[in-house]
Amino acid sequence: MSAVDYCAVRSLTEQLAAPLGPEDQTVQSMPDVSPTKWHRAHTTWFFETFLLEPNAPGYRPLNEAYRMLFNSYYEAVGPKHTRTERGLITRPGVEEVAAYRRHVDAAMLELVAGDLDPALADLLVLGCHHEQQHQELLVMDIKHVLSCNPLRPAYGTLPWAGVAPAEPGWIEHDGGIVEIGHAGAGFAFDNEGPRHEALLRPHRMATSLVTNGDWMAFIADGGYARPELWMSDGWATAQQVGWEGPLYWLRDGDSWQQFDLGGVAPVDPAEPVTHVSWYEADAYARWAGARLPTEAEWETAAPLPGEPGDWYGAVWQWTASPYNAYPGFQPSAGAVGEYNGKFMVNQQVLRGSARVTPPGHARRTYRNFFPAHARWAYAGFRLAV
Amino acid sequence: MSAVDYCAVRSLTEQLAAPLGPEDQTVQSMPDVSPTKWHRAHTTWFFETFLLEPNAPGYRPLNEAYRMLFNSYYEAVGPKHTRTERGLITRPGVEEVAAYRRHVDAAMLELVAGDLDPALADLLVLGCHHEQQHQELLVMDIKHVLSCNPLRPAYGTLPWAGVAPAEPGWIEHDGGIVEIGHAGAGFAFDNEGPRHEALLRPHRMATSLVTNGDWMAFIADGGYARPELWMSDGWATAQQVGWEGPLYWLRDGDSWQQFDLGGVAPVDPAEPVTHVSWYEADAYARWAGARLPTEAEWETAAPLPGEPGDWYGAVWQWTASPYNAYPGFQPSAGAVGEYNGKFMVNQQVLRGSARVTPPGHARRTYRNFFPAHARWAYAGFRLAV
Amino acid sequence: MSAVDYCAVRSLTEQLAAPLGPEDQTVQSMPDVSPTKWHRAHTTWFFETFLLEPNAPGYRPLNEAYRMLFNSYYEAVGPKHTRTERGLITRPGVEEVAAYRRHVDAAMLELVAGDLDPALADLLVLGCHHEQQHQELLVMDIKHVLSCNPLRPAYGTLPWAGVAPAEPGWIEHDGGIVEIGHAGAGFAFDNEGPRHEALLRPHRMATSLVTNGDWMAFIADGGYARPELWMSDGWATAQQVGWEGPLYWLRDGDSWQQFDLGGVAPVDPAEPVTHVSWYEADAYARWAGARLPTEAEWETAAPLPGEPGDWYGAVWQWTASPYNAYPGFQPSAGAVGEYNGKFMVNQQVLRGSARVTPPGHARRTYRNFFPAHARWAYAGFRLAV
Amino acid sequence: MSAVDYCAVRSLTEQLAAPLGPEDQTVQSMPDVSPTKWHRAHTTWFFETFLLEPNAPGYRPLNEAYRMLFNSYYEAVGPKHTRTERGLITRPGVEEVAAYRRHVDAAMLELVAGDLDPALADLLVLGCHHEQQHQELLVMDIKHVLSCNPLRPAYGTLPWAGVAPAEPGWIEHDGGIVEIGHAGAGFAFDNEGPRHEALLRPHRMATSLVTNGDWMAFIADGGYARPELWMSDGWATAQQVGWEGPLYWLRDGDSWQQFDLGGVAPVDPAEPVTHVSWYEADAYARWAGARLPTEAEWETAAPLPGEPGDWYGAVWQWTASPYNAYPGFQPSAGAVGEYNGKFMVNQQVLRGSARVTPPGHARRTYRNFFPAHARWAYAGFRLAV
Repeated sequence: MSAVDYCAVRSLTEQLAAPLGPEDQTVQSMPDVSPTKWHRAHTTWFFETFLLEPNAPGYRPLNEAYRMLFNSYYEAVGPKHTRTERGLITRPGVEEVAAYRRHVDAAMLELVAGDLDPALADLLVLGCHHEQQHQELLVMDIKHVLSCNPLRPAYGTLPWAGVAPAEPGWIEHDGGIVEIGHAGAGFAFDNEGPRHEALLRPHRMATSLVTNGDWMAFIADGGYARPELWMSDGWATAQQVGWEGPLYWLRDGDSWQQFDLGGVAPVDPAEPVTHVSWYEADAYARWAGARLPTEAEWETAAPLPGEPGDWYGAVWQWTASPYNAYPGFQPSAGAVGEYNGKFMVNQQVLRGSARVTPPGHARRTYRNFFPAHARWAYAGFRLAV
Repeated sequence: MSAVDYCAVRSLTEQLAAPLGPEDQTVQSMPDVSPTKWHRAHTTWFFETFLLEPNAPGYRPLNEAYRMLFNSYYEAVGPKHTRTERGLITRPGVEEVAAYRRHVDAAMLELVAGDLDPALADLLVLGCHHEQQHQELLVMDIKHVLSCNPLRPAYGTLPWAGVAPAEPGWIEHDGGIVEIGHAGAGFAFDNEGPRHEALLRPHRMATSLVTNGDWMAFIADGGYARPELWMSDGWATAQQVGWEGPLYWLRDGDSWQQFDLGGVAPVDPAEPVTHVSWYEADAYARWAGARLPTEAEWETAAPLPGEPGDWYGAVWQWTASPYNAYPGFQPSAGAVGEYNGKFMVNQQVLRGSARVTPPGHARRTYRNFFPAHARWAYAGFRLAV
Repeated sequence: MSAVDYCAVRSLTEQLAAPLGPEDQTVQSMPDVSPTKWHRAHTTWFFETFLLEPNAPGYRPLNEAYRMLFNSYYEAVGPKHTRTERGLITRPGVEEVAAYRRHVDAAMLELVAGDLDPALADLLVLGCHHEQQHQELLVMDIKHVLSCNPLRPAYGTLPWAGVAPAEPGWIEHDGGIVEIGHAGAGFAFDNEGPRHEALLRPHRMATSLVTNGDWMAFIADGGYARPELWMSDGWATAQQVGWEGPLYWLRDGDSWQQFDLGGVAPVDPAEPVTHVSWYEADAYARWAGARLPTEAEWETAAPLPGEPGDWYGAVWQWTASPYNAYPGFQPSAGAVGEYNGKFMVNQQVLRGSARVTPPGHARRTYRNFFPAHARWAYAGFRLAV
Repeated sequence: MSAVDYCAVRSLTEQLAAPLGPEDQTVQSMPDVSPTKWHRAHTTWFFETFLLEPNAPGYRPLNEAYRMLFNSYYEAVGPKHTRTERGLITRPGVEEVAAYRRHVDAAMLELVAGDLDPALADLLVLGCHHEQQHQELLVMDIKHVLSCNPLRPAYGTLPWAGVAPAEPGWIEHDGGIVEIGHAGAGFAFDNEGPRHEALLRPHRMATSLVTNGDWMAFIADGGYARPELWMSDGWATAQQVGWEGPLYWLRDGDSWQQFDLGGVAPVDPAEPVTHVSWYEADAYARWAGARLPTEAEWETAAPLPGEPGDWYGAVWQWTASPYNAYPGFQPSAGAVGEYNGKFMVNQQVLRGSARVTPPGHARRTYRNFFPAHARWAYAGFRLAV
């Protein structure tokens, strides 16, 4: 990975933050959300902590306090600021965060200029992928922040193109042993390996995503009022919070509007449904006489990123698979080993990638994960039978 | 299943409640716990609702209000009393609950006296297994209730024998495709089927359970103070609640006492550790350089109930497997279909059976389940590598 | 005070508990409520702690653990069981509590048989008044417990008569300096003194209580939907909890039923309104173009107990006065000094006495107090202008 | 009141906000706190809503949505944004708020240029006093916001001088009837009247405030560990939150530092203690063998603002008086009548004024009020005996 690649990733983060004022970048609208400027600083902290501090002998931190302030969850690194209080930190402000980024970038470019030993090269790649993840989170999170404002202000447009809806259809599979998971060259997170055998049952997989139009039919058929369609936890959550449609949908008489990055607009029935929880996806599948695919089925059916279809770049796709360790899974050594492994319970796997996933970040073996009730991610799904 | 079998099950419930006064039987010490008299009434409600009302033409309910009051979670049956308020219902009292049991038993014996059509015979068997489950819950729950009393009063002794600790050792398995799940004759819950192929990896399985002595070593080695051993959710829970040992363990200077059905007594290092959450079991396994077995591994290694060892009758055993549907799973038809399927998310599977499981209730294919943080169940574990 | 008086008070407590089964006596339906058997035990603990232990040399406690278990809030006495967990204590059961009462009564009768020094005689009187307070609380609390049961079971009837509604009218007062508060012989709580001057303004005081019929008119006129009538805290509480009428009122089409000690019955428009918070009373007064009287006004207008009218024996009457110390107030010495003084903030004074106040417990100078949101007390009010 | 006076008040608000970046101005660190830019906007909304809209015929609001967004608690004005979510509103940003202020100022200057009818003139004065109140809140609130930042950033210095500590001593009063409350010319809030007689007891009042040095002695003598000194509610709060000293005090080995507008510095024993709750002040007074003065005593003893001493300009001074209506109190007519009256329960009165009160805002009859647990206000106290 070259300095140019590093710069491209770093630069995209700033590009995504550019439409946002200092006020926008400061607020945390719920515990799951982080402020924009926190994302900008934390991704910087990652390079500082895991690359510069151990490997750049003359490196001087810009501010010692950032070590604690911008640690997300790495217990091995030391104390960290309480996650739920990220929105209380008004300083460093956006200008100081920009300066922090420049400070680390300068040192990083110096470090990267030389020959990197392989472990360090791997960390560089990891840091860039980590930053790409936060690019997606940054957009997800600011959407939630802006949605809390009764004025419903717009974020703007993303600097990359979306994908068109795919043709409906089914892919048949006869079942049997397949191989899934990452192996060989190329980057992957530790949770994508080791590559291993999985046993599939005969099944069919949809070639297209469930759409907003499908979802309206589900609502019209009482989908949110029929407990027999729902997991018990999901039904309780839906009743308690008062779910009547996907997050960001706004009832407008008999039709639906939705709040999106560009502001409020009518729901397009042809687009894939987004911002539904696993509970809702699971209930919909039961209503449709189908089920969610397992992640092994998904990975077997999916093409590589870049090929036609809506497997990538539209919405993350909930699967039936709880998120856990692949057989033989070993976390990466050191503090970065906290990256994925310690979240392997109480979450469901999502596959593919979304409209807000930065280009180049998708992989067929990629395992995203969220709790079953989460709705602020760009999550939809496709069916299997 | 004969009337004698029915009576034996019903009678055991009353035997388990016999050491408890009306005050003991009324209280709900946390939302997960139900009062003893609620268990006695709800199991009765099950027979009344699913067997008598649809099949015994002349049957008259003792009290129409019980239909709502003692419904646990069956949405299809109609309204239900709020789970968290079961401990607020002082009436019917224990005598009235006893009368309700006698009323339903009389009608049931009449119903059972004739030839039962197969569907009804199946419901009868299901009702008895359901009541056996609640026998175990009754004991688990009252233990929690009594533990909240600073006087630490004793429940008494169980009317059946326990099992001795097993010899340590390992069972090797070369991996490959096996069959698991229930098929054929004999009762099983719907979640135990269908029988299907599973792919095992080569592994070793412990022939004995992790003991209290092992657990003391884990504590002494800082097991509760080393975040790198824990899942993130588990670490947060342990810190927040202040876990320092299994539920019901009481620090006594340098040694440990524990509250049990017989009152407070020293912890026996040779006995299997009990009342640990999945988070703790998982952390211990990591500390021990091992892992929890999957449920397929467990079922493949386990003997049938009745054979030597500590696979059954000691503690339920946490597995690495999240609780979800077997391939091709179909819930039972009708309201009893709410029995298992709607809980298939956010839980972990436990296998075997426990000291408090009534005799005859264990099966090799039995799938018990609890959330990863639960500790009031009789849960321990064995290791795999 | 004679042994006969002591026995009469103690006996009335048991008489009030007699209609209640062990299940009824065990439950705590909200943090403010205490279980019946806790009231029976705590009043006993008071005599044991403050009279027997310091003064009866040979006295042996029945159970050392009761010292902690039945301490309500006396910090000076030592540790106390958490108030919110009183409903988790199933043992001692009602029979053991009865034995505890008998044990203490026997020792008390021995103690009382001799000549009491004045300090001890005062404590004896205080203990009896304390028990009378808990007699009222016992009834208030069990009413709340039973109201949580969807079956709405009845408690029964009180062993003393109520009072008839008084004639409407006004008492004029020209204002000026008056004396209020307790002085001289006869028992009073420390918070009723010292007697002191108070400055009244010219005003009129209603001779009768606001009735259920009046309250219906308030409701019909949108009383619960007009924020301009309410204190800000009261409006927020009313909106959040969803108040639409007094506690225990049940809407029945266009009319109202209420749950009372005898079960559910239609609301009688002629009876004084009961179970309203200070917030509601204050809002009503504003709606009626009046205000609540101050406690000094109330005490000046009120006759002695036993004279005609509804000043005593119907409902406690909210006043405009926050509860605080009279000028020169000194708490009683010793642990019993925690009786009243430490609650002198965040409460409003109520005067008179209620249907559930035991006979002989009322005084013109009596200062009852509850937080402004409390509704489970027998509280109503009269108007002043 | 002239246009110049209006401009002076408006300008001071902007001066107080000037040291704060857009990030600082956006955050709400607890429900009681409001963001700086909200204060700037809400004070503007007050003039727009109560002066311009009804009286300036050609006035066009800058943004219709601000009517709801910047309403604090005026039910009569219409819907309002949830108080606890003021910190989620990133837009309008600080520049837009500045534009809103300029827009309203321009219209106000036009309105004020002409002859004002007396009612409007009164509203103008009220609006300026309202804005002065928010100037103080703005500083109090931003101090809390900045204190949540582990970097403890400084706000800066206030643009007006403080007062020196006063000489210790006592003022004797023989008791009797005095007059308190506002009457006659000059502005006062509605809650300061009507002027009325109050009855004082003989007492002594301290001529100086309790100091930080006094408070250290209280701490050293176990003041925070002796329940007998505390109101019950206060003790519970202190235990639950873990109070060990005034808000913003930071233990530093054996000495104390405190966070203030200028950052962290050692506590000066000669300065008046600040940021203590009423509970703490009351406990201290009991410890010192004294009591808090009533507000009538305070008003009788206090000089006019501007005279020597620490009665004004140092700290608000807790009194023993619960906040309620003076005899004959009538709220102002119209929506501004919600200003004070609806908060007259569950609060304690404070008198004087504080370091952060803008010059010219103090009055001898001024009645400030906060709940007994509040600590983020600049509150201290003096003793009475």
